[in-house]
Amino acid sequence: MDIAKVDHIGIAVTNLSETIKFYEETLGIKCHGTEEVADQKVRVAFFPVGDTELEFLESTGDDGPIAKFIEANKGRGGIQHVALRVPDIVSAIAELKAKGVQMIDNEPRYGAGGASIAFCHPKSTGGILLELCERN
Amino acid sequence: MDIAKVDHIGIAVTNLSETIKFYEETLGIKCHGTEEVADQKVRVAFFPVGDTELEFLESTGDDGPIAKFIEANKGRGGIQHVALRVPDIVSAIAELKAKGVQMIDNEPRYGAGGASIAFCHPKSTGGILLELCERN
Repeated sequence: MDIAKVDHIGIAVTNLSETIKFYEETLGIKCHGTEEVADQKVRVAFFPVGDTELEFLESTGDDGPIAKFIEANKGRGGIQHVALRVPDIVSAIAELKAKGVQMIDNEPRYGAGGASIAFCHPKSTGGILLELCERN
Repeated sequence: MDIAKVDHIGIAVTNLSETIKFYEETLGIKCHGTEEVADQKVRVAFFPVGDTELEFLESTGDDGPIAKFIEANKGRGGIQHVALRVPDIVSAIAELKAKGVQMIDNEPRYGAGGASIAFCHPKSTGGILLELCERN
């Protein structure tokens, strides 16, 4: 499998506007925009750093994946996933499945910023939520 | 503050040798070595990817920070911290303290791979364990 880089780090937060303020004003990292992904019930803020990106995720509903992550984390934010950039997500999914990895997504779906993404099941990765991510 | 890149992503795991096997054999990312940091009661495996690095952390004791993280996470691994590379950690700590950020480490200390590191308190960062990291 050809993994070029860490595409982004997905970080669940309870208050996106406070997060943006902290990272911009205190740490001096510039926010390159926000996006709401209705399907995932999240609002996302993008902070490119080096050749990767911090993606802060605030839930827009009570039952989306970020809401559930924060609930399991005693109401606190935390680092939810790591996304690895692959050149061809369809073949990457096929390769992992052939190697016995359980996928949450057997087909690519839309990810924030226009990516094609697929999550591996944490059962197959030692408990870590790993995302595959292709961008054109 | 001058943050050049994400230095590494610190990931707590329950079985380092299984993790190394999965990331090398299934994902094709090469491990560049391991190190035991006695002070932190961890054994670390380094996986450079792009301009950052995945650092997998296995506890070597029952009471170190990784053991506590895994205990709080119901016995499972998870993504414990994000480290941001700074050119001068002493001045970075001073700048954050002047801006009201609570630090876990008010002085730099030794980090895996020979870095100088300091953790910010999650209370000041929206719940995320952020590390500052200088390397020479």
